[in-house]
Amino acid sequence: MPILNYGNPIRFDFGAVKHLPDALAKLAVSRPLLVTDAGVRAAGLADRALDSLGAFGRIPIYDQTPGNPTEDAVMDALALYQSEGCDGVVCIGGGSPMDLGKAVALLALSGGPLDQYDPLKGGNKHVKGVSPLIAIPTTSGTGSEASMGFVIIMNDGRKLTFANPLFFPKLSLCDPELTLGLPPLTTAATGMDAMTHCIEAILASGDNPPADGIGLDGLWRGWRHLQRAVEDGSDRKARWEMMMASTEGALAFVKGLGAVHSMSHAAGRIKSLRLHHGTLNAVILPTVLRFNESVCEVQYGRIRQAMGLSSTADLAQEVERMNAAIGLPKGLAAMGVSAELINDMVPHAVSDLSTRTNPKPVGADDYAMMFRAAM
Amino acid sequence: MPILNYGNPIRFDFGAVKHLPDALAKLAVSRPLLVTDAGVRAAGLADRALDSLGAFGRIPIYDQTPGNPTEDAVMDALALYQSEGCDGVVCIGGGSPMDLGKAVALLALSGGPLDQYDPLKGGNKHVKGVSPLIAIPTTSGTGSEASMGFVIIMNDGRKLTFANPLFFPKLSLCDPELTLGLPPLTTAATGMDAMTHCIEAILASGDNPPADGIGLDGLWRGWRHLQRAVEDGSDRKARWEMMMASTEGALAFVKGLGAVHSMSHAAGRIKSLRLHHGTLNAVILPTVLRFNESVCEVQYGRIRQAMGLSSTADLAQEVERMNAAIGLPKGLAAMGVSAELINDMVPHAVSDLSTRTNPKPVGADDYAMMFRAAM
Repeated sequence: MPILNYGNPIRFDFGAVKHLPDALAKLAVSRPLLVTDAGVRAAGLADRALDSLGAFGRIPIYDQTPGNPTEDAVMDALALYQSEGCDGVVCIGGGSPMDLGKAVALLALSGGPLDQYDPLKGGNKHVKGVSPLIAIPTTSGTGSEASMGFVIIMNDGRKLTFANPLFFPKLSLCDPELTLGLPPLTTAATGMDAMTHCIEAILASGDNPPADGIGLDGLWRGWRHLQRAVEDGSDRKARWEMMMASTEGALAFVKGLGAVHSMSHAAGRIKSLRLHHGTLNAVILPTVLRFNESVCEVQYGRIRQAMGLSSTADLAQEVERMNAAIGLPKGLAAMGVSAELINDMVPHAVSDLSTRTNPKPVGADDYAMMFRAAM
Repeated sequence: MPILNYGNPIRFDFGAVKHLPDALAKLAVSRPLLVTDAGVRAAGLADRALDSLGAFGRIPIYDQTPGNPTEDAVMDALALYQSEGCDGVVCIGGGSPMDLGKAVALLALSGGPLDQYDPLKGGNKHVKGVSPLIAIPTTSGTGSEASMGFVIIMNDGRKLTFANPLFFPKLSLCDPELTLGLPPLTTAATGMDAMTHCIEAILASGDNPPADGIGLDGLWRGWRHLQRAVEDGSDRKARWEMMMASTEGALAFVKGLGAVHSMSHAAGRIKSLRLHHGTLNAVILPTVLRFNESVCEVQYGRIRQAMGLSSTADLAQEVERMNAAIGLPKGLAAMGVSAELINDMVPHAVSDLSTRTNPKPVGADDYAMMFRAAM
């Protein structure tokens, strides 16, 4: 079974989830908290993990992770971790349970409040330790299983990104088997999340050639298999390739992301709308590709090549064509975002961590223009 | 300054070497052994490191590293390490001083004899610890600074590859400044070593897509800058790109290498000939590309694209063309290898670690044929 070791150790292949009991034993975790969400649980995926953990006795489960994890939900899960005397975390699900689990693992050993760890305010100096965490993705998109970051909507309304090498899962079990039952629309939205990670990492400012290479490889395999995975969820080859593209997206985005993510985070923090992060990325990506084009000639050429497009293809149009082919909405308006929200979203986009690495400097006016264009 | 963290931490840019004193302090090394070779010392490069280490007092130096490091030389350097009461190793040079330094760091904490650590005989279970090591490459080829492996010619004539995550340098300082004075022929030979690492890693059997991506990126930048670096050694952009391609080659070859390396090792172990590893790789590569072609259609397509070649280009011919353009010999015969040595080399190639990951099964008859073809 392929074992990747570029950030954290990752066991990657059909059947990887069967390594969970051994992995917990190796990490000396005797009482894990299982973090998941209601949908993953209803789909029977949490049970696949639980079934293998008979020797661990009754496993406490937190399955109330919201679509975009909130500080309140983190505190609820932490209370369960503590009252049950847990000594480790197993996350099974998409980006939300994995990110929530990472926050619990941090607070369990380093204490609260969560916002003291904001890396934009030098928060990493407060990180004293992180409880051992194993991540088991059930979607192919977020890449949280291969990332040192996590994103939480704080009680004051900000959507904060936390990042520290200690936040890498101690081990991730990437088992494409768990994605075979993923519905077409979720496959499409999470898949475009992975594609956006690859593209924004390649375009991000700063030098990290290995990240460029990994992002291009993720794009190469993801762009060829996304529509296949959407149209036939049981296509094992397409599922394997999409999960790999997702993992590669996260290995690449250590270099940084860009304006797509700043805008997605700014929209995603509006709790009442409950917007899906991957769908937001997919819908916003063409607008940002048009904005950045003038400064990214070499990278756009490499991206076209990785996608198998002609050397003169319009990347923004190609993304729009893919979004339409896999059933994603045409713009923010179709997702329920109204133009009145733009003034509220812009300052959050400006202050987002990802704004710093967009290849072209981007300010409030640019964001306002792009939100309008992405409607 | 770019900091890469895909295998071990790497500080990469012009001026990186100035971080050496801080790095030693951070690793709590108070008395490092400096491992180098006579050529690097004569070129004044060892002094660049020493100049920054005034606060450490007199630094013991082992500068007798042979062109291909031997077990005897390892033992000499270890004796110096021990008699001087050292507590860490700084390697400055090409692959030979870095590999020799890794062996010293291993024996210093885990004890001898060296051959007990042969990974093909389960030797890694004997590794108890490794002395802290900082690697500073002065060529762009070996990638030892980004690799968990090292290669030593044993006293019994075998050329053994050792590999363990503990053998990663604790930190590498990749400073292209140190390569500005590298002569054209060494630039060419080490550069083709890096290109061979990228190509063999991409072709190696097994699944490691991030390695494929990193190898393709290394090839993309290396193939465009190698001849430039050879023709004008002071071309800083070309030197930066070649050093990055070298580092990426090593990050990629965690996936494995192939028959080129098996044959190079088998020839390189003949002490009397003192053959340069990178030159051997360059000269053997076209023959192995012809041998593997029938099973590598997709990968050859991606390699052509990365090199900027047409989709029907003959890769073996393109490598021959590059070898000629940068002044490398045409074949093994021109390097002094005679046909009578083939019977001696073949079994060493067969038993080499890299034979296991060649994309096409390769046996003694194949190696005999390829040695003849590469003459």
